[in-house]
Amino acid sequence: MNASTALLTDHYELTMVRAAMGSGTAFRRSVFELFPRRLPEGRRYGVVAGTGRVLDALENFRFGDEDVSFLLETGVVDDDLAAWLASYRFSGDIWGYPDGELYFPGSPILSVEGTFAEACILETLLLSIYNYDSAVASAASRMTAMAGERPCIEMGSRRTNEWSAVVAARAAYVAGFASTSNLAAGRRFGVPTAGTAAHSFTLLHDTEEDAFRAQIAALGADTTLLVDTYDVTEAVTRGVELTNGRLGAVRLDSGDLLTQAVDVRKLLDSLGAVNTRIIVTSDLDEFQIAALRAAPVNGYGVGTQLVTGSGHPACGFVYKLVSRAASQDPDAPLEPVAKKSTNKGSVGGRKFALRRLNEHGIAEAEVVGIGAPPEGDHNDRPLLVELVRQGEIVGREPLDAARERHHRSRGELPSSAFKMSRGYPAIVTVMLDAEGEATFNPYAPEA
Amino acid sequence: MNASTALLTDHYELTMVRAAMGSGTAFRRSVFELFPRRLPEGRRYGVVAGTGRVLDALENFRFGDEDVSFLLETGVVDDDLAAWLASYRFSGDIWGYPDGELYFPGSPILSVEGTFAEACILETLLLSIYNYDSAVASAASRMTAMAGERPCIEMGSRRTNEWSAVVAARAAYVAGFASTSNLAAGRRFGVPTAGTAAHSFTLLHDTEEDAFRAQIAALGADTTLLVDTYDVTEAVTRGVELTNGRLGAVRLDSGDLLTQAVDVRKLLDSLGAVNTRIIVTSDLDEFQIAALRAAPVNGYGVGTQLVTGSGHPACGFVYKLVSRAASQDPDAPLEPVAKKSTNKGSVGGRKFALRRLNEHGIAEAEVVGIGAPPEGDHNDRPLLVELVRQGEIVGREPLDAARERHHRSRGELPSSAFKMSRGYPAIVTVMLDAEGEATFNPYAPEA
Repeated sequence: MNASTALLTDHYELTMVRAAMGSGTAFRRSVFELFPRRLPEGRRYGVVAGTGRVLDALENFRFGDEDVSFLLETGVVDDDLAAWLASYRFSGDIWGYPDGELYFPGSPILSVEGTFAEACILETLLLSIYNYDSAVASAASRMTAMAGERPCIEMGSRRTNEWSAVVAARAAYVAGFASTSNLAAGRRFGVPTAGTAAHSFTLLHDTEEDAFRAQIAALGADTTLLVDTYDVTEAVTRGVELTNGRLGAVRLDSGDLLTQAVDVRKLLDSLGAVNTRIIVTSDLDEFQIAALRAAPVNGYGVGTQLVTGSGHPACGFVYKLVSRAASQDPDAPLEPVAKKSTNKGSVGGRKFALRRLNEHGIAEAEVVGIGAPPEGDHNDRPLLVELVRQGEIVGREPLDAARERHHRSRGELPSSAFKMSRGYPAIVTVMLDAEGEATFNPYAPEA
Repeated sequence: MNASTALLTDHYELTMVRAAMGSGTAFRRSVFELFPRRLPEGRRYGVVAGTGRVLDALENFRFGDEDVSFLLETGVVDDDLAAWLASYRFSGDIWGYPDGELYFPGSPILSVEGTFAEACILETLLLSIYNYDSAVASAASRMTAMAGERPCIEMGSRRTNEWSAVVAARAAYVAGFASTSNLAAGRRFGVPTAGTAAHSFTLLHDTEEDAFRAQIAALGADTTLLVDTYDVTEAVTRGVELTNGRLGAVRLDSGDLLTQAVDVRKLLDSLGAVNTRIIVTSDLDEFQIAALRAAPVNGYGVGTQLVTGSGHPACGFVYKLVSRAASQDPDAPLEPVAKKSTNKGSVGGRKFALRRLNEHGIAEAEVVGIGAPPEGDHNDRPLLVELVRQGEIVGREPLDAARERHHRSRGELPSSAFKMSRGYPAIVTVMLDAEGEATFNPYAPEA
């Protein structure tokens, strides 16, 4: 994953630069913004993940000799563009929402300022990272909100592309998951890893008891036994006996989890294993986790629905040119630009943002200033942080800082944000012009 | 993407092997199978993609020194397992459905025979690859089926993880897409790449005419102009004028594509640009492509819905131990095993498969033999091909072979397979025991 990211790019980014080099516009100073037009249908908030990954990907955005040869041989680029790509280094400025921050319709999640050419060719890579990572984080946050104090374990690696799996674990951790099954995420991002055994381990042995004995011998009495390969009652009883009541946990992976959890809890208690936990897995999502609130469950393993964004596998972020100079003179002023297409228009001009908080620290609005930072009062919180200054990466932070930020930001939301029914964004987006006056707002909720 | 794939593995695969080494069962000869219990809800067939990628990933499944150190330091493995991992090379046999083949409920897509340990630890990686790649290919095939002779262009890179994007382009190509926007897929897999310009290119220039002139100068009159930044009629007229009627294509990316396509076709014809094609993009899926059949459209650019599996972003393949020896003696006979959990049971014993074709070459059933290859008549087609023999990869093929296979296999389906309404699998799955008698079939459609 330290490979060059330069070819993770759409063909048209390069043909645009090629044509713009021809017309003498490629090096006009420009601002591109990455933002969502709306939240996924029915969702009340979104969670940004990917910012730290973008910084790593930017560092590895280098066209190697073989990349350039490929582009020349296939006719994607001409000699001028090839030479420019070979020495490409992003030299501009990037501000953005940090990992773990919340977002709402119109939030200016990333602002990239540089020449048109250097900012344009980052489009595909930036969108790929944010669209997937934030989809996972947004789903994960709803799950951990419903789970409350009970830990959620990320175990969806097998349900998404093998490299997606690694970053899904990162995004889930930012949004409050306790651990992951994915070893590469452990090594690369420091996410705690967890796991014990699957059904195949039980089937490998001549009897379930043999399998349990082997697992306890290797992993200790505090391990988690998978108890639904044959008969759950027998398996639970056996596991408690073999550990003298000190069994760490049992895992239920099939059937009606609610009634089973109740039965297994009673059984464990009757056997004196009052500290043995119950972990449930099997097609969980935030709704099922909410439905299990009343069940005697101690942890949730979540797979498919987490890594596929629980019905919304891509966030729908877009990356748009919002300002550019009218000449290649580096001192030429930026001018706002916007397309006017039906149903997909955009708002020209660079955006700034703050989260408006009331006197109790509860979020009330996403305030987006066009062309100038909106004025806030002392409770309000600016949202953009400096990530890259004149090409130098300045915005790195430990992953735990993102996780803590998410916890704090989510804690600012009004309680309506945590209703699992379909609804509108938990707070409104307010658009202000450079004078601070309310202006055209394409992000108003459909009442 | 030539990085080691060894840590793209769930924690529990290694703890299972560790415990099995302790109980003297880790090296029992075993067969694991990768298969779907069902198709995604409402789908009539699925498409296998990932087989060629699995072979590459297997070759790169090597635990480096730093990987092993990480696993030791975090306590995932003990010294014995660490030593075994450091010298890991898969030495067994793999048979499977090749890229582009169709699948149905219960199709034994991959059969992995080796010791428990060596086959077990491939689980996560194999599932990740097949679950994502086949989800994309299955969606892509429905799209190309609806598009008929009109080309489909894959442009979803920005809507999925950056590395997923590369393999999504591969899967889409197998299932009939003509080209991709993804440059890395071009370089790595030889998929043809395509692209011209986005709205930002028009906005960069002082006028739309400047932008069109620049694009035509760089890419030729045969280029595709994006005509919906401002006014479509003006843009189309301008593009035709600037190319003296030889404009390659116009692209529509917003609004009501059907009525716009009709209007733009009339306009182009009235301007004499009768050979200028119309390409449509903007949230297309197989249903929208079908709805545009009657429109004068010459090609489809598909993004989000392709790379997210059009509502089904993961196939739900599982990887189960179906047979294993009762001792570590390499000559000990294999014995079928299966778990009995509620609603998630499996069928023990190694599977073989053929597609039953009638006298007209039309598919009638997926015939799965348990423990022995089913007998077929001369029209029937065996489905498993040899991929790995005693650790040596023998199943590589050019990507175009997979693409052609898909075209042929899809051509065998009854016409009911191409109804876009929700339905049951286009053919039934038949399970036969080793004597060729019909047996318990968990894959029968719910009538």
